[in-house]
Amino acid sequence: MLARFLFLTLLTFLSACSQTPAPAEHKHESTEPRNIIFMIGDGMGSNYLTAYRYYLAEGQHQQIKPTIYDQLWTGMSSTWPDDQTLVTDSAASATALATGVKTFNAAISVDQQHLPIGTMMQQAKRLGKANGIVASSQINHATPAAFLAHNKSRRNMDAIADHYFDIRIDGQLVPDVMFGGGLRHFIRDDRNLVAEFQAEGYQYADSWQQLSQLNRAPALALLADSGLPSVLNQELESPLQLMTEKALELLSPHPQGFVLMVEGSQIDWCGHANDIACAMTEMHDFALAIETAKAYVDANPDTLLIITADHETGGLSLGADGIYEWRADLIYGVQFTVRELTRRFIDVEAQDIAKQWRQYTSLPLTDEQLTMITDAQHDRDSLYWVLNQLINDATRTGWTTTGHTAADVPVLAYGAGAEQFTGFMDNIDIGKRIMQLIDASASRQ
Amino acid sequence: MLARFLFLTLLTFLSACSQTPAPAEHKHESTEPRNIIFMIGDGMGSNYLTAYRYYLAEGQHQQIKPTIYDQLWTGMSSTWPDDQTLVTDSAASATALATGVKTFNAAISVDQQHLPIGTMMQQAKRLGKANGIVASSQINHATPAAFLAHNKSRRNMDAIADHYFDIRIDGQLVPDVMFGGGLRHFIRDDRNLVAEFQAEGYQYADSWQQLSQLNRAPALALLADSGLPSVLNQELESPLQLMTEKALELLSPHPQGFVLMVEGSQIDWCGHANDIACAMTEMHDFALAIETAKAYVDANPDTLLIITADHETGGLSLGADGIYEWRADLIYGVQFTVRELTRRFIDVEAQDIAKQWRQYTSLPLTDEQLTMITDAQHDRDSLYWVLNQLINDATRTGWTTTGHTAADVPVLAYGAGAEQFTGFMDNIDIGKRIMQLIDASASRQ
Repeated sequence: MLARFLFLTLLTFLSACSQTPAPAEHKHESTEPRNIIFMIGDGMGSNYLTAYRYYLAEGQHQQIKPTIYDQLWTGMSSTWPDDQTLVTDSAASATALATGVKTFNAAISVDQQHLPIGTMMQQAKRLGKANGIVASSQINHATPAAFLAHNKSRRNMDAIADHYFDIRIDGQLVPDVMFGGGLRHFIRDDRNLVAEFQAEGYQYADSWQQLSQLNRAPALALLADSGLPSVLNQELESPLQLMTEKALELLSPHPQGFVLMVEGSQIDWCGHANDIACAMTEMHDFALAIETAKAYVDANPDTLLIITADHETGGLSLGADGIYEWRADLIYGVQFTVRELTRRFIDVEAQDIAKQWRQYTSLPLTDEQLTMITDAQHDRDSLYWVLNQLINDATRTGWTTTGHTAADVPVLAYGAGAEQFTGFMDNIDIGKRIMQLIDASASRQ
Repeated sequence: MLARFLFLTLLTFLSACSQTPAPAEHKHESTEPRNIIFMIGDGMGSNYLTAYRYYLAEGQHQQIKPTIYDQLWTGMSSTWPDDQTLVTDSAASATALATGVKTFNAAISVDQQHLPIGTMMQQAKRLGKANGIVASSQINHATPAAFLAHNKSRRNMDAIADHYFDIRIDGQLVPDVMFGGGLRHFIRDDRNLVAEFQAEGYQYADSWQQLSQLNRAPALALLADSGLPSVLNQELESPLQLMTEKALELLSPHPQGFVLMVEGSQIDWCGHANDIACAMTEMHDFALAIETAKAYVDANPDTLLIITADHETGGLSLGADGIYEWRADLIYGVQFTVRELTRRFIDVEAQDIAKQWRQYTSLPLTDEQLTMITDAQHDRDSLYWVLNQLINDATRTGWTTTGHTAADVPVLAYGAGAEQFTGFMDNIDIGKRIMQLIDASASRQ
């Protein structure tokens, strides 16, 4: 307990330090935004934007045209962490985006000495602004965690959840809105954080029905035990859009504006799984959430919408194995993630496989491919990679890794202050500039 | 001959049509540039820029900092051709960039009916501006070809070379400067185009020494039978920079300005070869040529520098096989392209392989890797892919194809009119906007 007290005291001190505005590197003439909507597509390298453009055109049987991503695209960002690897994980990159400081892989808003680094949500709270996080993963997963917690390891997810409640800024709880998954980290044998939040006046939802009925901040919604279901495997077209709409509704009345972080968390998970149909439906979910955010900016021009990714996942390429085509059209037929397909095919009798394959994927199946499936059915992992290969081969989708890469990522910006996010920048520049805008906006009020 | 006459007559007609300015899609307030330097990194997807940044930092034992590419980065471009593949070849993409019109893969500035499409070099000539092409490939390879010739297939390289001389605009030859490789297409059994150009008053060089002595346009330099040697395998730090400097020197005195296209041709060839050391040295060659062009803009602010790629090659990724690192530092030790290494290792005795491997690559060699090499020595192609894999595995470099991908490519712009090339665009937008700027500049004079 003493250690925790010292840590939180130190944090308060550091957090206060972060108020001192850094020397402005980028002069700007437009009004500082009152509200900031910061959206992060986890794992969303630029090839994901390219892929989504062609996927969307095929799905609508239309000419190729710029997507919502393309319309807002203003720059590119590097993502290297503060070590020798050049390839960041989500924790180090989220720390850079949430604090403007580079750190080591696995770190949640702590530096190389494991000392806490003040985050933009803590800054917003100190300056009298509301703030919120929305994610399709657990709300205490690496990316949202870096906005609200401090830990040397992203894996300490219970400790991270504790910080969401325990850290106080000027005596106040930090987050005003938290929507996403992760219930099992908030109601545990050793602690019931949901009850603690409720005791502090938070509205609470644990279903989509209840989410729709939330009518004021502060509010907490935990809509799944861990991450939300993959968009491709369930009925809602865009869970992230629903959560984003509600978050904006609840934060909008705040007299001094707000900072909202929205993460398209599972784009990354599809990348790790090398699953292109999964990735495209998560990109669609994120795109619809962006449409909602853009509409908010159109109605409230004193708002900045800034969108980026923490890193690229999978080494995705459109075209592979020497063949000059990418079959975006075939992705639409795939009805489930490869993980779900694996679950469904593990016990299917040989004579039913071809029929079910066509039913679930709309892809043909040669005799040779059928044999590949039956040969792999003894082992879930082998079966996974066979089904995965069939879809990637058919669509000519290439991947180089089940991990991350050092690729630069897109930067998209719209609204008040967007001109500060053009051209090439580093991920800490994004965090720094947002924090400068929050400072500048608060000092004007 | 009649067919050729009709073709060239039709071309003249179409070329004249292309003078009619298209409706300006992008209003701009800055002065139209008098000169345009249009640089194309063939195959240069955004991962090549990322890779070069980390390669350069390692080579200089310095902190990572923005490269010349990063400093000029303003947007991204899609590259899809006018067919169903989504993956372009260099010919279709060069046509889009040189004419503002999409066409099919393999086409050199002809449309789906094989009719010629007027190019920006023909437009420049008609409007009284000088023009030139510089390439590290053959000067009649797909990319430069689309600026000066018309053919249904890029493979007809002799016919393309003929067009460089035969096409006339208002009675004049089109190109004022042509520097690069491809001598065997210009001095042939059936035709000596070099002599024909000389008879029309062109200075001629076929060595670097002679290139340095050229002192006026028009001029032709053919510095290799086919493409120039890979930068990694020869002594000059930047052949492309030498050619770019000379081209600017010769074009600069023209009273009505110029349009110069400079291609870093072999970035693409290294991509096809999945050869990362090769790719980084070609990126360095191109970077130094860009430094020269940027310095020209600084000294002549009525100049636009615009840089892009025709497509991405190789599905390059930095990081592979689930490992979170990219070893840019190890690339510096590799002394030759994998093709040259293969030539050197095909006959080496087993006891000398490890020593020579360390000498040529500075990489360790395990006993298992040594066996991989000796087992592959019977076959040049097998040996190539073994040596290739050793370097890619050591550096954690991933590739998905020996062909192209549908990735969007970077857009970089600097100088007069640069503001027209920001955010997301399509490759035909780049061609169209440059041609509008050429028209606007000429109509002002």
